[in-house]
Amino acid sequence: MKENFQKHVTSHAHRVPPSRPAHFYRGRPSSPHAHSPRINKPPHHIRGDVLRVIPLGGLNEVGQNTMVFECGNDIVVIDLGLQFPEIGMPGIDYIIPDTAYLEQRKNRIRGIIITHGHLDHIGGIPYLIEKLGFPPIFSAKLTAGFIKKQLEEFGLERRAKIHIFDPDKAILRFGRIEAAFFRVNHSIPDAVGVLLKTPAGNIVHTGDFKFDETPARDQKPADLQHIAKIGASNVLALFSDSTNALEPGRTMSETSIGANLEPLIVNAKGRMIIASFSSLIGRLQQVFDIALKHKKKVFLSGRSMHDSVEIARNLGYLRYPANLVKDINHLGGPDKDTIILTTGSQGEEFSSLTRIAQKEHQFVKIKPGDTVLISASPIIGNERAISNVINNLAKLGANIIHDRTLDVHTSGHGCQEDLKMMIDLIKPKYLVPIHGEYFMRQAHKALGIEMGIKDENIILIENGDILELGAGKVHASHQKIKLEHILIDGYGVGDIGTQILYERNKMSENGIVIVLLTINAKTRKLNAKIDIISRGFVFMQKSEEVIEKMKKVAEAAYQEITKKHPGAKRSDIKRYIANKLQKTTEDQLDRKPLILPVIVEI
Amino acid sequence: MKENFQKHVTSHAHRVPPSRPAHFYRGRPSSPHAHSPRINKPPHHIRGDVLRVIPLGGLNEVGQNTMVFECGNDIVVIDLGLQFPEIGMPGIDYIIPDTAYLEQRKNRIRGIIITHGHLDHIGGIPYLIEKLGFPPIFSAKLTAGFIKKQLEEFGLERRAKIHIFDPDKAILRFGRIEAAFFRVNHSIPDAVGVLLKTPAGNIVHTGDFKFDETPARDQKPADLQHIAKIGASNVLALFSDSTNALEPGRTMSETSIGANLEPLIVNAKGRMIIASFSSLIGRLQQVFDIALKHKKKVFLSGRSMHDSVEIARNLGYLRYPANLVKDINHLGGPDKDTIILTTGSQGEEFSSLTRIAQKEHQFVKIKPGDTVLISASPIIGNERAISNVINNLAKLGANIIHDRTLDVHTSGHGCQEDLKMMIDLIKPKYLVPIHGEYFMRQAHKALGIEMGIKDENIILIENGDILELGAGKVHASHQKIKLEHILIDGYGVGDIGTQILYERNKMSENGIVIVLLTINAKTRKLNAKIDIISRGFVFMQKSEEVIEKMKKVAEAAYQEITKKHPGAKRSDIKRYIANKLQKTTEDQLDRKPLILPVIVEI
Repeated sequence: MKENFQKHVTSHAHRVPPSRPAHFYRGRPSSPHAHSPRINKPPHHIRGDVLRVIPLGGLNEVGQNTMVFECGNDIVVIDLGLQFPEIGMPGIDYIIPDTAYLEQRKNRIRGIIITHGHLDHIGGIPYLIEKLGFPPIFSAKLTAGFIKKQLEEFGLERRAKIHIFDPDKAILRFGRIEAAFFRVNHSIPDAVGVLLKTPAGNIVHTGDFKFDETPARDQKPADLQHIAKIGASNVLALFSDSTNALEPGRTMSETSIGANLEPLIVNAKGRMIIASFSSLIGRLQQVFDIALKHKKKVFLSGRSMHDSVEIARNLGYLRYPANLVKDINHLGGPDKDTIILTTGSQGEEFSSLTRIAQKEHQFVKIKPGDTVLISASPIIGNERAISNVINNLAKLGANIIHDRTLDVHTSGHGCQEDLKMMIDLIKPKYLVPIHGEYFMRQAHKALGIEMGIKDENIILIENGDILELGAGKVHASHQKIKLEHILIDGYGVGDIGTQILYERNKMSENGIVIVLLTINAKTRKLNAKIDIISRGFVFMQKSEEVIEKMKKVAEAAYQEITKKHPGAKRSDIKRYIANKLQKTTEDQLDRKPLILPVIVEI
Repeated sequence: MKENFQKHVTSHAHRVPPSRPAHFYRGRPSSPHAHSPRINKPPHHIRGDVLRVIPLGGLNEVGQNTMVFECGNDIVVIDLGLQFPEIGMPGIDYIIPDTAYLEQRKNRIRGIIITHGHLDHIGGIPYLIEKLGFPPIFSAKLTAGFIKKQLEEFGLERRAKIHIFDPDKAILRFGRIEAAFFRVNHSIPDAVGVLLKTPAGNIVHTGDFKFDETPARDQKPADLQHIAKIGASNVLALFSDSTNALEPGRTMSETSIGANLEPLIVNAKGRMIIASFSSLIGRLQQVFDIALKHKKKVFLSGRSMHDSVEIARNLGYLRYPANLVKDINHLGGPDKDTIILTTGSQGEEFSSLTRIAQKEHQFVKIKPGDTVLISASPIIGNERAISNVINNLAKLGANIIHDRTLDVHTSGHGCQEDLKMMIDLIKPKYLVPIHGEYFMRQAHKALGIEMGIKDENIILIENGDILELGAGKVHASHQKIKLEHILIDGYGVGDIGTQILYERNKMSENGIVIVLLTINAKTRKLNAKIDIISRGFVFMQKSEEVIEKMKKVAEAAYQEITKKHPGAKRSDIKRYIANKLQKTTEDQLDRKPLILPVIVEI
């Protein structure tokens, strides 16, 4: 079976995926030969023995992890993630990587390898896979389950092709690049690291990882034997996860968390509400096991919790008797036998836990005696929202347990000793810290130097940087690819840019003032009194004085500019009035609303 | 001297402050007798042997600490702070407590006691002191220095009266309430706790505190002898700081931080840029001492850093030779002898450190070899902004040291062992956890129970709750005072309310769409094509299709409503059009902009 499977995916990696729909070719004949030049004509600037590595995302932010490996005519991409919005991006749902570089070379993409099923590694797929010409996607089994779910939501599941590999055995050939995998531990099962054998040398990409000798039931420890063997094969460069490079020691084992959770769950006097990450399957398995052992029932709340449990169970990554776990709308039974497993551990606005805290959850109303256990730790930037949720739950009478009070969570990323162990196992000539904030990668670099890697052999890169690997050396090119933020708001992908964000931020700070001028089309004289309408600016009733003053200033400004420049363009007139009014609002109120003059000709 | 001073302030506490300007009395004669009723007619509902305690701020948020103590006719207020804006309050600069309760009783306010000079305890003064009728303010010396600086910025320094007390000796009488003080440690010198002797019993309010047996040079440890003596006097209720109730152990001593900083400063290869809180005078003193010892120069950057150093030095709380410390515009000398002391440790938008990180600082440009030491820890909610600053500094080549890498900061608030020590010294019958988030106060309650205080004797209150103390008992009243958020935006105090914030948030999420309809005043028919102007919504050029559709929808909606209801009011027409368009933008783009129809009659 495995052998056949191998052949199957290998042959696919070379061909136009058969699922690629005819309309994709935009008028060109849909025979595979139409695309043969893409293999036979390597561009001048990339030699077949040089590997170019270009991060398109994930190095200037946490999220949208996407890394291009290009050798001659062959491109392999590792991960295609999304990012949650940053400060100053109101209304934005997600940010996806700018893949223009790949789109221009889409018929050279041999495959997209996904290291694990988290959104910051798979979330870009449904938005981008069509633009990239539906190149084949390769991942381990559970990862594929999460990708398929994403694609289904976009109605793309039949057009995209996902190939499942066995990380212990698969060897995939993508033209000049050969890929093999090794199991690592992470906060989701089936996470893998990647070995790329290229003419320029052997490259290792860890994905997100930690070492856990005792992961949750049915999961395996990272494959140290395999990693050591790879390390013995002369690795030129290690691209390694830096997220916890500031944390000393080893990351705590998942089963230690289970051991800590058990007495808390057993001793809870009332209901136990546990918030965690829905994809943290090992944690869920442990909660289910504890529930089964102590004859409690588990109720699931939150859409992604349902989806994850369903995917993981169907694929054999979660095991429990059917009557143990129910939907939250079946909530019932004695309080002390009730466990509610919910999303919202990051204080997300519309999540189940936030709705519980705001007394807006349809089925769960907090009562004294309830315990809320937040089995997660905050991602940077979410601390305020989480604290608000915790405060509200505490006020409703819940007893709160979180990672600041007890060890009820462990990270999915390796701490300093894990990172050093990876370096020691792989023994790379070059170290390229990836993932995590820049200052975390800097800390990872310090660890590398401690381990004896030369300072100049540890390379800190950012999105769009081009690393060139060849002749046993790695260096950052002077060239750089310019990348844009691709912002997603509702159904719109990339229709929001800097100007729109500027306007949103400006209006959010001080509102908008609309100045309505009706003028005579012939004489260009003002036809009526100027009207001022504002939103988010001041209470009009309370600020009549200021509004009256603004009307006068606007009128005077209109007279001035049309007198001075009788032929002034509309846009000039508007700008002149807006500048004058800006000064007025600053002087009067120390506020800078967006000012929008509107001229109606009659 | 002290004796005279005591009499002076005591007599003031009973009288209309002589500085109260005539215009304040609003037509009433400006003789002190005009206000005598305030002392002679206690309202029915407050008996002279009952103490009412009402927090007006500081218990539903971090900041705006303000607590009212009312006994018969006498009101004493402890602290009058401000708060920084919360999530969902774009454009708001500060929030101040709602003091309507006090304003209605302003001629009964005998005094405002300020426990220390941080903004969350003094920042409300310049905004509120006039509304409260300029009651006298009482504080220790350095605290008074910071209050005066605030008042000067508002031109109120001559009208407000500040009385300085010596915390070791002062006994102030405010009618039925007598106040004494005890020194505590905090992240600013001269922090005090307050003992209120009232007919209802003895009450202790700790202010913000920790115990530090070895504070920075010239500062004294918290006065354990004095606190123990107070504890021996039968304390009914202890109001105690809960900020670090989740942190185990004792808070680290300030001089340990100094000991950690010294080798870092000595061994830095290039310039040492230290960001800390400007009011953390003990930290600054230690940096100055290290600089002096190792023949380095200190350059100050950031307005509040200048102000604090000036105030503290003038009042004798900071000691250094004049040539040691210079303004940042004198930056020069060998890099290794250069220390830059800057504001911005919280990643504040326009702070000096943020400007350095964004390459916008006039004098400080980061170069490789520079070390940035963040001698502070993040306040909840600031983590993202701080990480951004750290990333930018790291990218510019700076070596970064912060409290996640080394012990370069200690909190000003007591950890669990400090809190337990305070309870043990005071031995109160009742414990009222104050300050900090609600879940921190809940953790403080757990400590109190551990210490043997009865569950029902530990009372968690929120803003507006009324605690009634009398006959050896404390209970929360069923009544509650309704409090509003008083928002400050620019020069406007309280002119921004829920509606304005709603509009700002809505526009920040999806922008605004202005629909311009010109109609014939007589026929009420549309006179021209409908115009659509948007800001923060979509690129108009890229979204012509949607905009055209919206025009059609608006036109049809106008026809419909005017046909169905020929006499429809303008507001109804506008609402009808807005609703229709809202559906369109949701269907087409999944966005909900603020929709603003504007009808111009011709």
